[in-house]
Amino acid sequence: MTSVSLHTAVTQTAHEIETMETRGAAPIAKAAATALKTQAVEPDYETPHSFRATLRAAGRTLHETRPTAVSLPNALRYVLRRIDGETIPEQRSAVAASVDEFIMHLEHAQEDLGRVGANRLKNGDTVMTHCHSTDAIACVETAVLQGKEITAIVKETRPRNQGHITARELTEMGVDVTLIVDSAARRYLNTVDHVLVGADSIAADGSVINKIGTSGLAVNARDRGTPIMVAAQTLKLHPETMTGHTVEIEQRAETEVITEGERAAIGDPQIENPAFDVTPPRYVDAIVTERGQFPPESIVILMRELFGDGVDEPWVEP
Amino acid sequence: MTSVSLHTAVTQTAHEIETMETRGAAPIAKAAATALKTQAVEPDYETPHSFRATLRAAGRTLHETRPTAVSLPNALRYVLRRIDGETIPEQRSAVAASVDEFIMHLEHAQEDLGRVGANRLKNGDTVMTHCHSTDAIACVETAVLQGKEITAIVKETRPRNQGHITARELTEMGVDVTLIVDSAARRYLNTVDHVLVGADSIAADGSVINKIGTSGLAVNARDRGTPIMVAAQTLKLHPETMTGHTVEIEQRAETEVITEGERAAIGDPQIENPAFDVTPPRYVDAIVTERGQFPPESIVILMRELFGDGVDEPWVEP
Amino acid sequence: MTSVSLHTAVTQTAHEIETMETRGAAPIAKAAATALKTQAVEPDYETPHSFRATLRAAGRTLHETRPTAVSLPNALRYVLRRIDGETIPEQRSAVAASVDEFIMHLEHAQEDLGRVGANRLKNGDTVMTHCHSTDAIACVETAVLQGKEITAIVKETRPRNQGHITARELTEMGVDVTLIVDSAARRYLNTVDHVLVGADSIAADGSVINKIGTSGLAVNARDRGTPIMVAAQTLKLHPETMTGHTVEIEQRAETEVITEGERAAIGDPQIENPAFDVTPPRYVDAIVTERGQFPPESIVILMRELFGDGVDEPWVEP
Amino acid sequence: MTSVSLHTAVTQTAHEIETMETRGAAPIAKAAATALKTQAVEPDYETPHSFRATLRAAGRTLHETRPTAVSLPNALRYVLRRIDGETIPEQRSAVAASVDEFIMHLEHAQEDLGRVGANRLKNGDTVMTHCHSTDAIACVETAVLQGKEITAIVKETRPRNQGHITARELTEMGVDVTLIVDSAARRYLNTVDHVLVGADSIAADGSVINKIGTSGLAVNARDRGTPIMVAAQTLKLHPETMTGHTVEIEQRAETEVITEGERAAIGDPQIENPAFDVTPPRYVDAIVTERGQFPPESIVILMRELFGDGVDEPWVEP
Amino acid sequence: MTSVSLHTAVTQTAHEIETMETRGAAPIAKAAATALKTQAVEPDYETPHSFRATLRAAGRTLHETRPTAVSLPNALRYVLRRIDGETIPEQRSAVAASVDEFIMHLEHAQEDLGRVGANRLKNGDTVMTHCHSTDAIACVETAVLQGKEITAIVKETRPRNQGHITARELTEMGVDVTLIVDSAARRYLNTVDHVLVGADSIAADGSVINKIGTSGLAVNARDRGTPIMVAAQTLKLHPETMTGHTVEIEQRAETEVITEGERAAIGDPQIENPAFDVTPPRYVDAIVTERGQFPPESIVILMRELFGDGVDEPWVEP
Amino acid sequence: MTSVSLHTAVTQTAHEIETMETRGAAPIAKAAATALKTQAVEPDYETPHSFRATLRAAGRTLHETRPTAVSLPNALRYVLRRIDGETIPEQRSAVAASVDEFIMHLEHAQEDLGRVGANRLKNGDTVMTHCHSTDAIACVETAVLQGKEITAIVKETRPRNQGHITARELTEMGVDVTLIVDSAARRYLNTVDHVLVGADSIAADGSVINKIGTSGLAVNARDRGTPIMVAAQTLKLHPETMTGHTVEIEQRAETEVITEGERAAIGDPQIENPAFDVTPPRYVDAIVTERGQFPPESIVILMRELFGDGVDEPWVEP
Repeated sequence: MTSVSLHTAVTQTAHEIETMETRGAAPIAKAAATALKTQAVEPDYETPHSFRATLRAAGRTLHETRPTAVSLPNALRYVLRRIDGETIPEQRSAVAASVDEFIMHLEHAQEDLGRVGANRLKNGDTVMTHCHSTDAIACVETAVLQGKEITAIVKETRPRNQGHITARELTEMGVDVTLIVDSAARRYLNTVDHVLVGADSIAADGSVINKIGTSGLAVNARDRGTPIMVAAQTLKLHPETMTGHTVEIEQRAETEVITEGERAAIGDPQIENPAFDVTPPRYVDAIVTERGQFPPESIVILMRELFGDGVDEPWVEP
Repeated sequence: MTSVSLHTAVTQTAHEIETMETRGAAPIAKAAATALKTQAVEPDYETPHSFRATLRAAGRTLHETRPTAVSLPNALRYVLRRIDGETIPEQRSAVAASVDEFIMHLEHAQEDLGRVGANRLKNGDTVMTHCHSTDAIACVETAVLQGKEITAIVKETRPRNQGHITARELTEMGVDVTLIVDSAARRYLNTVDHVLVGADSIAADGSVINKIGTSGLAVNARDRGTPIMVAAQTLKLHPETMTGHTVEIEQRAETEVITEGERAAIGDPQIENPAFDVTPPRYVDAIVTERGQFPPESIVILMRELFGDGVDEPWVEP
Repeated sequence: MTSVSLHTAVTQTAHEIETMETRGAAPIAKAAATALKTQAVEPDYETPHSFRATLRAAGRTLHETRPTAVSLPNALRYVLRRIDGETIPEQRSAVAASVDEFIMHLEHAQEDLGRVGANRLKNGDTVMTHCHSTDAIACVETAVLQGKEITAIVKETRPRNQGHITARELTEMGVDVTLIVDSAARRYLNTVDHVLVGADSIAADGSVINKIGTSGLAVNARDRGTPIMVAAQTLKLHPETMTGHTVEIEQRAETEVITEGERAAIGDPQIENPAFDVTPPRYVDAIVTERGQFPPESIVILMRELFGDGVDEPWVEP
Repeated sequence: MTSVSLHTAVTQTAHEIETMETRGAAPIAKAAATALKTQAVEPDYETPHSFRATLRAAGRTLHETRPTAVSLPNALRYVLRRIDGETIPEQRSAVAASVDEFIMHLEHAQEDLGRVGANRLKNGDTVMTHCHSTDAIACVETAVLQGKEITAIVKETRPRNQGHITARELTEMGVDVTLIVDSAARRYLNTVDHVLVGADSIAADGSVINKIGTSGLAVNARDRGTPIMVAAQTLKLHPETMTGHTVEIEQRAETEVITEGERAAIGDPQIENPAFDVTPPRYVDAIVTERGQFPPESIVILMRELFGDGVDEPWVEP
Repeated sequence: MTSVSLHTAVTQTAHEIETMETRGAAPIAKAAATALKTQAVEPDYETPHSFRATLRAAGRTLHETRPTAVSLPNALRYVLRRIDGETIPEQRSAVAASVDEFIMHLEHAQEDLGRVGANRLKNGDTVMTHCHSTDAIACVETAVLQGKEITAIVKETRPRNQGHITARELTEMGVDVTLIVDSAARRYLNTVDHVLVGADSIAADGSVINKIGTSGLAVNARDRGTPIMVAAQTLKLHPETMTGHTVEIEQRAETEVITEGERAAIGDPQIENPAFDVTPPRYVDAIVTERGQFPPESIVILMRELFGDGVDEPWVEP
Repeated sequence: MTSVSLHTAVTQTAHEIETMETRGAAPIAKAAATALKTQAVEPDYETPHSFRATLRAAGRTLHETRPTAVSLPNALRYVLRRIDGETIPEQRSAVAASVDEFIMHLEHAQEDLGRVGANRLKNGDTVMTHCHSTDAIACVETAVLQGKEITAIVKETRPRNQGHITARELTEMGVDVTLIVDSAARRYLNTVDHVLVGADSIAADGSVINKIGTSGLAVNARDRGTPIMVAAQTLKLHPETMTGHTVEIEQRAETEVITEGERAAIGDPQIENPAFDVTPPRYVDAIVTERGQFPPESIVILMRELFGDGVDEPWVEP
């Protein structure tokens, strides 16, 4: 197949993603989408078919850099699925439009999500947080800016104590914060109006992959009658899971759990330090995204709308 | 009422308990019972009534030293309820017998309990522990001595990491130990055959008061279909709860949760650090004692058999 | 069998119970026990066997007056099971002692029960009530007298609005009362610390028979994580249920639900108006009696201790 | 922005809605849609942009009259989102078509819904109702017209006894009705094949807002294994909830619960009289609409299809 | 209405379906779609309206042959809903395209579904099966071909022992199989990673209709924390259920349960032998189709996408 | 220790039990108790101590014959724990009395139990049975003799179809029987008033060990709100479980599940054929014994009353 060669913007972006010069879910997504737009303005396409093929090839090059990052394929799927048009100019403008739309959504996503989440919070409510999530924080911040008084019970979130960051940020925005160890959560659940957490990714079966401890908290919240809301931009929706793929749970450094010295002192036990766990949808009341809130069982429909059915990988040669 | 004055063994023991020279559930119980036996051999009682009144007075003196310690009233109740007999010699020997019986049980309690608990464990079983409990450890140790291969998943148990002690002791007896943070528990529950914990005290309504985090673990264990056993000597049965009293949950030092410096750095949030929580009986499968195992809902009957109905406080003047 | 004829105190008491001159659980029980004591002091017994037979006959006469009242057989069982002794004087004093003991307990039962129940309530607690129960009220009253501030959410309890009585009595003792319709209960359950109800009777399988609506409330309380306590004197324990008998649920007047006129106006539907329903033990946290508190699953053991095993009907000729 | 001034049909309709001359969910929706159609036929639009702007302005005027009524914004969203077309005639006909479509659906909605709901009912089934809902009644009526024999247990639904209306209407259509007090519901749930209720509104997270008592009934129905169906036209879907807004639960007059005189007589307690409560989706089996039946967790997708994503408020200036 | 007469391909296919010469869900669906395509190439249509009417008539003829077969209306709905176009040639090519698309999906459905299901299985997993389902088998087979080691516990599935077929097929592909009686399932559930079953049909409310015993297994799996996946091609989605229709459960021959002789020997009891049962969506974790996996609560949206809203029956005269 | 040699009645009975000449729970228990009584009448005891030692030795001899049979140690425990008395004649008569009492209870046990169980059944009730249990049958039979109309749904109970025996016996007593395969149970549970099963043995933690399939049935019954009653004589209470011992579940012949030939034909899978399973107490509503009914959580108290605390093995030398 004859296709135009890739624009250096694509290869350069691919390089920067691969070397982690560009990192973080949103920056990667934005860079990849922008690279596709640059590729689209290349003047030398001969046929609509060649345009499409080249864009796919650009997508493939970008995708291969970090195939397991959830935001990268989302950006590529979003744009490549929307190369509509019979002529090259039509295609070109379709790409430009979808890239602009994608980036526009991306740039406002946390703000929009925060507004949706804030609407679930009432004046005087208490939230319980686990780990640190800028999406979850955005919900509280918007509520505070709306003049609502919000109180927070913040779990420290061993082993890395990201709850400390959450505590600091909430305190700075004027939220009354109480810090507890993770094990104390159940004792405070019946004084809490919402469990509010972020997500590392969301699966098509409605499961929420988030910091280890989320699922145990959610089960207790359900048992105590406390609603659980998950704040997650659509960038976190995991299209591969639509075709049944499961999300691999990484093990992190053992020294996060115990120092080498302490470990030796207690007989050198094995250490397991999984970063995340999986919360089934029946323990979650709502997933709050920048596109609105959804019961976890219907999030797959939003995934399909945004990113296709997961079967079609638009960077693969048909 | 004329009654013989208290033996110095009583006042001395009372002093030692009050000053915490004598401390720990079992030593306190043993000292108190022994003091009653010494009091009983005093030669100067004039009437059976006077004998009884003096013994009650001794009990009262001992009880007042630490009225909230659960083992002290248990020891006193056990003995004072058994002052049977029409004559002083009969009473005396009844006291001696019940003290001896009490101490004999006390001295073998952990060993007997360990045997009962070990019988619930099969060769090849994996247990998950929370905090550190010598009663729980005794169950595993006996099982290991019976030749069973036992594996353990040990929760570190923030904020004081008593799981490290558990890890060390189990490792020393040849158990294969894996250490995890508390939040990781749910993820491993379906590879576990028993959740095995101790108890700070047991209430008449079948609730288990134990290290903070126990109730959240138990709820998750029930949700995953993993049985929960609680190892607790009868010394931990809380007679006051028979008359509806609830067990006060103490708050421990805030610096167990976060250092002063770290706390200041994150905006000086409030800290809550409850030492224990309450697990309702419906989340517990069996309470293992030195008198056998019981569903938590029937432990109140054992409490009544050993310590009376809780209404009668045998050290109080009738 | 030759037996002494019945004392007029027995026949007179039987008559008064039958004609409902004597009514109410406690008065019936007390009258029946007293009649047995009077019968026991009759001078003309020839043999211990005759004494026993006559007392049984007296019991039979009393029992036949209202065989379905739960307190009457309880009183008879309590006394007749305790006719110990080899000689008539021994028997006589055994009867007198057990009657006195029974009445003494009866007279203090509500007060003792109130103390046990009050111990479960903390300063600042909110209770939700259903119907009107003097036993339940006694728990709150004792708590208030102990200086605890108690708030109440009172269900009106259609069709007879006994909640109005509860509201009035609680208001009079200084409790802050909010009245709601029965259907509003769930909405307030998560602001409530205890659901507190009485019982019409308690079955051996731990079920609580109480005013219609109790079971639906208990299921919702469990779902919301709110503990449920039942206040019931031991007089309410239903010995016949130990042998599997179920408690018949009576239907009350249709006009309690709707007036004849309103009914005609809506097409004359059928009306069902059951007085009570049955709450299974798994929805109840504690049964509070004057003998202490019990998980519902172990109340059968208290029934056996007080009233025998239910198989033996001590007023029946052996 | 230059735009055509509003047609008097719009201002008149707005006035009638505001003054509640036009009231009820369906009449309001129909009037608003009709007003938009009238506005669209105005001859004086200069540009497609002006057409669109004027229609939006008309929507804004209508929306401001009663912003919390759920059917009004639904009607406006339905029409304003469908102003497709490059030319004014195209736009005009798009508006006319969508208004006609909307009204056609509206006029057949209850009938269509009734057919869907009736299909869930089998000959011989018993339903339990709460409050009075013409949508729910329509399901039974259609089933009866299909020749099915349906029996009903009707809760009276304090405080306003709307169950009496339900009883009358069902009786009139030949249904065998039994009337019960609300508290008696659980006792009859295991003789019931369906709990059948209407809805005041439906939220994007699948929650059903309906007459107080619905949620408690649903929890009991789930506990007893009885399926729960909610009959609600799509007019009841609450688009604001897609962006996280919660539905405010109004408090109604205290005198609905108790007369002033009775209240004074019982110590003047506070009264809470919430009109509605919120049933989470996990207690509902199916929401029956005129567009078919849906699990509550997927109703948000229907909301998006009909009314947009809730973020875009089509009467607001972009 | 004047319309072209039906092609013999249609009448012939209808005949073959009616006489069950053509049988099985996929063959029926393929034959019906092919017949429509043949009908579409007829040269004699006069107007687009006539084309459409004739195709509908063809659909009607085909549909009437076996109105309760789930795959037949699915095929017809799929094609007839897609007769787009203003001209006959456009319509013709729309029909051809949708038939080809439908058949293409059909032919790859099991393979595609198998890939989705296999992605849920990890190396070393154990599945428990009920009955025999080629869709479920396809998931395991694909996993095995991907090099994963899968173990199976196979329920025999009385009364027809289809588990024997499953056991044989899994053994042949190298799976380590253990056969158990149906009643033994719970005992092995906590050694199982997935319950994996097929479906006879899937209802719009997310219920799974499958071989009798599925629902009881699913309830136990949920209770034990074992995930349940249902493998079902979209051909099994039951469009009639979108409008509330329930799926009739057929009773099969009594002699499947017990021979005539054995039955006579035990007193000739009645026999009930329902072929299927209904598993509510809350007991199912994922429905695996060739279009991806879905929580059962959102499958209705896929049904609508593929087959319309169920209200419109495209073979009926409008 | 000098002790009288064992009576030939003891050695002969031991031999008959060992060789299974005497078999069945009740016959073994009766034979063992009778042998102890015969031993007690031996004339040659020199001291009360020697009497006691010899009786223990007799117990030991009998116990060793089949140490895992649950009824044998129960009989021995019952008698040996009751050798009260200061003199040999007193001891002798204590043994005789306790043997007589034990046998008397044994002989009436099924009848007494049947009466208790029948009291739980109402006229018109439907029971669902699993396997065949004479204790369960006795409940129905007594109810029928009381004039109640009882209907039964009988599970066939693969692999040995003991349900056929149940069907025949119930039919013979006039019960209307419907036979179903085991997998069909859930479908009929909501037409059933009681699940009624027997027990192989009952553990101290309230678990019921019964025919494989009982636990899965009980979980479904709980889910459907159907009460579960277990009919089991106290002979089935397993004293060893009081000290934590678990009950070994035996595997039965593989050919019960599938013939050798069929097995070979399907690839020779492994077969698991466990005879029993364990139902936790939370899925059981009542255990019906000849001593009355008990919630499963309190059965341990009855075990202690009848057979001691399980720690003391009265046939062991102290």
